[in-house]
Amino acid sequence: MANNERLQRMRRAMEAERIDALVLRLPENVLLLSGYWPMIGAAVLVFPREGTPTCINAHCYEAEASLSLWEAEVMHYRYGVLGAVERAEALRRILLGISQAHSWRRIGYEERFHTVAPSWNAAEMLIPACETRELLSSIFEGSQLIDVSVLIEEQRTRKTAFEAEKLRIASEVSCLGLAAFEKSVRVGASGVELAAEVEREIMARGTGYKSALRVRAFAQVAVGAEESAVGYRPNEISTTRKLRKGDVALLELGVVADGYWADRTRLRVAGTPTEEQSRIFEVVRQAQQSAVAAIREGVTGAQVDEAARSVIRAAGLADCFPHITGHGLGFRYHESAPILSPDSSQKLEEGMLTSVEPGVYEQRFGGFRLEDDVLVTRKGAEVLGPFRMALA
Amino acid sequence: MANNERLQRMRRAMEAERIDALVLRLPENVLLLSGYWPMIGAAVLVFPREGTPTCINAHCYEAEASLSLWEAEVMHYRYGVLGAVERAEALRRILLGISQAHSWRRIGYEERFHTVAPSWNAAEMLIPACETRELLSSIFEGSQLIDVSVLIEEQRTRKTAFEAEKLRIASEVSCLGLAAFEKSVRVGASGVELAAEVEREIMARGTGYKSALRVRAFAQVAVGAEESAVGYRPNEISTTRKLRKGDVALLELGVVADGYWADRTRLRVAGTPTEEQSRIFEVVRQAQQSAVAAIREGVTGAQVDEAARSVIRAAGLADCFPHITGHGLGFRYHESAPILSPDSSQKLEEGMLTSVEPGVYEQRFGGFRLEDDVLVTRKGAEVLGPFRMALA
Repeated sequence: MANNERLQRMRRAMEAERIDALVLRLPENVLLLSGYWPMIGAAVLVFPREGTPTCINAHCYEAEASLSLWEAEVMHYRYGVLGAVERAEALRRILLGISQAHSWRRIGYEERFHTVAPSWNAAEMLIPACETRELLSSIFEGSQLIDVSVLIEEQRTRKTAFEAEKLRIASEVSCLGLAAFEKSVRVGASGVELAAEVEREIMARGTGYKSALRVRAFAQVAVGAEESAVGYRPNEISTTRKLRKGDVALLELGVVADGYWADRTRLRVAGTPTEEQSRIFEVVRQAQQSAVAAIREGVTGAQVDEAARSVIRAAGLADCFPHITGHGLGFRYHESAPILSPDSSQKLEEGMLTSVEPGVYEQRFGGFRLEDDVLVTRKGAEVLGPFRMALA
Repeated sequence: MANNERLQRMRRAMEAERIDALVLRLPENVLLLSGYWPMIGAAVLVFPREGTPTCINAHCYEAEASLSLWEAEVMHYRYGVLGAVERAEALRRILLGISQAHSWRRIGYEERFHTVAPSWNAAEMLIPACETRELLSSIFEGSQLIDVSVLIEEQRTRKTAFEAEKLRIASEVSCLGLAAFEKSVRVGASGVELAAEVEREIMARGTGYKSALRVRAFAQVAVGAEESAVGYRPNEISTTRKLRKGDVALLELGVVADGYWADRTRLRVAGTPTEEQSRIFEVVRQAQQSAVAAIREGVTGAQVDEAARSVIRAAGLADCFPHITGHGLGFRYHESAPILSPDSSQKLEEGMLTSVEPGVYEQRFGGFRLEDDVLVTRKGAEVLGPFRMALA
């Protein structure tokens, strides 16, 4: 079942910009318009405004691609075997044939994507460097190459019903990791042990969940006040520091299921929380829930941010909340819109997905953050993959 | 302790090309010339031919960078906090100051790297897209921008003693995963469960091994004849298929420790191997060891490939070995040199690191491959992180 709403919206956007076809290489965009999340980033999607898309792929991933690819012509080049033509040359030949069969005048490609999601094989990334521009220039001679990075990022901001369901699955899978974290936090466990256990649980139990084919987690656990106090950073850093009695453990968790992302944070204490820990946790929990409650069509990012920030301010902790309340996500761990920040005038729209993750950080008591992903719906907001928030 | 041999060799190469300074953004190259493996790929290294390098980094990673950064001037921009200037603008301002303090005429940068290693945070990648060229053009006005992608890849081909020791650690860490694999292969275990367990063990036990700070594994396990028969592909794909009695399990394992990579493959059978399985395993083992024995300075990639291929050919399995015998690695999971293939006339040199990974694949009996990483030394060859090869 294809994501027809997505295809139609993209075609309307292409029409408005008079773009005849897109040639896409980044895994996240190949997924967006073909349903297929490439194994190693070596697939190219040619998406014409009219007619059937063409997915050019390495021959050895034919079976895997067929499990999720929507209606598309499939063309293969041989890869990873003796006698195969070099990949750039193989792509050139196939694209040349496509070029000659059409008279496209304006062709969109990804010139300015500079934050990118990994392919399934996160150990290595193929990026559209200058070769891609040169390749397309030489093939589509006489055509105009248009950078569609902003257009695609904008289109991605509002998720379709099809994508919302995929994102729900990713968030539900992330709950397996949150549960494993709860279960594993104990005196003597180290940050890397906790992170590794969360990742193991998600890959082992999440693969196959609601038919998800490829599931991977990226977990980071800061342990104790000193480590978690700098947990406002875009990533915590897990170390071999072991939990002592009364320490906090702060889990930052990115999860990808078939190319769709979830971003969660939970916090636990090893042993019995102190009164101060419980008080701060409750402030952050209320801030988080206040922001979630504020989410609906038409409100600005700043209004949602303020819903969280005002709770933290009222508790006398304003100086301890140095970051924004949330960011877009979905086809990546982080997307550029919406942004829930004090100066964001962007209005939320149906289909937007945002993290909601206020936090307070202080050397003395450590870092406290809680994070869920929230979809803007017609009725208000939906927390994807709901999961309890408890300090112990 | 800095990697002075590397710094001197790079400076000589820059001199030969009359390059006054390098401006590097890719994590693998920042590591190469500074010792620091960036957390999220947001660090920039300015490496002048003469004088002290400058590492520009997000302020929040100062402590982590200081653990491994060699002699360098450190400049920070604020990141991930309210009120911070947008990153591109922050970098522009700092680079402008550096530009004005020097009169560099030829500046090298990474225009054509298109296969890249992830940063520590493998969940997201910052890539030097066209902005980087534009940024550097506007800052170093009047200077010439030189693509140094090939120069750097070539320099990286021969590892220094410092790097060999780091790569040894990565390979030794990978053995923790190979041991976990041996222990975990049993009837009823699925490919994703085995892969997840190998990754867990490496992160949990490998971090801290010989002071390694950041360790992560990317494991893939093909289960049974059908899945492993296509295991010649650049990556196997782990599924929920469970091991049945007598099934093979083929582990492909990428490991990164502080930015240095290992690439291993092992094979196990759940239960007692059949005579045929044992025979094929022994052919592949002998082919692998024959190739390792052939490695020394001055031999060509083709000669090493033939050492493995001739063993497989003699066993009547020539048609079942469709791929090359090995590839370079070290700063990535895969590097472009050396290549051990039937048509590789490149001669091995001291300091080169290559995978050695012959395999045979057939629908009926499945895929059999064994892989170690081998360093070319003055005395011949050194298998990094030696580990037994046993089918059961």
